[in-house]
Amino acid sequence: MKIGIIGSGVVAQTLGSKLIGQGHDLILGTRDPNKLDDKKMFGATLREWKSQTDGRGRIVEIATFKEAAAQGELLINATSGVVSLEALKLAAADKVGAKVLIDVANELDHSKGMPPRVLASQERCLAEKIQEAFPNLKVVKTLNTIGAPVMVEPKAVGGGDHTVFVSGNDAEAKATVVALLRSFGWTDLLDLGDISSARGPEMYMAMWIRLWGATKTGMLNIKVVR
Amino acid sequence: MKIGIIGSGVVAQTLGSKLIGQGHDLILGTRDPNKLDDKKMFGATLREWKSQTDGRGRIVEIATFKEAAAQGELLINATSGVVSLEALKLAAADKVGAKVLIDVANELDHSKGMPPRVLASQERCLAEKIQEAFPNLKVVKTLNTIGAPVMVEPKAVGGGDHTVFVSGNDAEAKATVVALLRSFGWTDLLDLGDISSARGPEMYMAMWIRLWGATKTGMLNIKVVR
Repeated sequence: MKIGIIGSGVVAQTLGSKLIGQGHDLILGTRDPNKLDDKKMFGATLREWKSQTDGRGRIVEIATFKEAAAQGELLINATSGVVSLEALKLAAADKVGAKVLIDVANELDHSKGMPPRVLASQERCLAEKIQEAFPNLKVVKTLNTIGAPVMVEPKAVGGGDHTVFVSGNDAEAKATVVALLRSFGWTDLLDLGDISSARGPEMYMAMWIRLWGATKTGMLNIKVVR
Repeated sequence: MKIGIIGSGVVAQTLGSKLIGQGHDLILGTRDPNKLDDKKMFGATLREWKSQTDGRGRIVEIATFKEAAAQGELLINATSGVVSLEALKLAAADKVGAKVLIDVANELDHSKGMPPRVLASQERCLAEKIQEAFPNLKVVKTLNTIGAPVMVEPKAVGGGDHTVFVSGNDAEAKATVVALLRSFGWTDLLDLGDISSARGPEMYMAMWIRLWGATKTGMLNIKVVR
């Protein structure tokens, strides 16, 4: 499958590397595909990342948001949450038909120092806003509750005995995403309901940030004990 | 120890019954101590609750907010979060000196039907507002992430292998609260930091409500796997 990732930071790079390793083709969309040497907040430059992923036998392309959205059969929003809607507009995501969009983003405000401020609230749910702005897409929220390394390697924390969540309006789209998550090693998947339920995991990010602060590691996750 | 509970709903009643069973004296403050037969959103009427708790050899008193705050050596805010500040003002909590206040409340809006709307946000942290309004109190946020029956009986879910959080500015106050939590059976306690960290567990309530909806049970909690 050819997967289009919107975004090029550490989350995009981590998911991209995993998907290439699994045998998928990849088109990674960035604001300006000529700027391969820009520093990222986390992660490698795109040139460094591409040099690590090339030669694994799959096609890896760095392109514009628009090309990634057009060519990907499955799309992933891995931009910073505060620019996701703008990036998806630049990607002309309204013109790509009924594709699945996996939204892994969080709206964080880093402008006031540490810890970052979580902008999600009862009134502000990014996944819901994306679904409203792009009714052609089948938006599935997942993986936003977990740091990038754990997203693709759940067994790296507590042997993998912890929970990942999915929210979305379309059952078939959620089944596609669940299959992908299982291929990453996730075993405890919890369907929270329609896309409005994504405010749960988005607001949880305020807890994640405090867990990260208290434990001094991002290599953590929660298990829903029930 | 004589414990003063501000509030008289199901959380106050559940904590109260547990504390009486542990041999503490209790003074439970309610808006109008003469209204013993008012229906609660959850839980028993105060008359029913008192008839269940009397005769266990401890003093149980139903009184005003003000009497509970004045007489309790340790205080618990178990009011509905949206009225907590008002209740603590009625309790004259600014006049009671440097007492520990355990804040277990959540600000929920039930006016728009199910699921309730979670009002906590980056800008709206109840425990922080209580600490600001009553600098004489040593506010410790805890237990707000868990349904009432599980608060006092953690072993009722998954044998008790899950996490409870504490936030507060005063280390000694947190140690007092941790000891009380251990006496309830909690074994995995995580100190999130100062009172500003309470926005983590308060915003998490949006997740809890979705977990409750998805699993159809409130008998659940999260374990921080790290």
